Amino acid sequence: MPPPYQRQVFVCTNRRPDGSPRGCCASKGGEDLKLALKKEMDAQDVKGTRINGAGCLDACERGMSIVVYPEQVWYGPVTLSDVKEIVSSHLKEGQVVERLRMKLPIERKKD
Amino acid sequence: MPPPYQRQVFVCTNRRPDGSPRGCCASKGGEDLKLALKKEMDAQDVKGTRINGAGCLDACERGMSIVVYPEQVWYGPVTLSDVKEIVSSHLKEGQVVERLRMKLPIERKKD
Repeated sequence: MPPPYQRQVFVCTNRRPDGSPRGCCASKGGEDLKLALKKEMDAQDVKGTRINGAGCLDACERGMSIVVYPEQVWYGPVTLSDVKEIVSSHLKEGQVVERLRMKLPIERKKD
Repeated sequence: MPPPYQRQVFVCTNRRPDGSPRGCCASKGGEDLKLALKKEMDAQDVKGTRINGAGCLDACERGMSIVVYPEQVWYGPVTLSDVKEIVSSHLKEGQVVERLRMKLPIERKKD
């Protein structure tokens, strides 16, 4: 399914050096999160949404972090246990998962 | 500058195996395109927009490909010579560069 998509989800898979004060989504499981979202999309037969890995979304302190467009909804921290609800509620039914919305602003740590 | 951003640009940097009939944005210079967009943003002092690399946007035949959110505007094929105009027109002034809009639908080649 080529673009345009109804929705596109970008999952941060950026890796920072070990011990970075900001942490990073890769070390928290960003790649696994991306794969879990894809798998759950298939399981729930959700169409029209593409899941993509992305470079640093600069929300490291709130990772794992994802953003859903075009709604521009940020989620984080997200864990693997949140995947089913994100897919069933937001990606399938269009209902934002309020409890997972990223708290803003983010106070960034020195790196 | 943490999220939310006014705009976010995702640049496909996906690499397919050499000789893939679909081609890929990496072999066409996706990483260079991403860096050129960042550099031009700085040069033109554009604020509020984040440039991110992304996995396969599945617009391989129209690569190099990028998508601008939240407007959900797809550009491709984009070359390095288009970077100044994308930044000055779209990212700075909010005017879509119509000549670069991706032609849809895409007839995907077998991979």
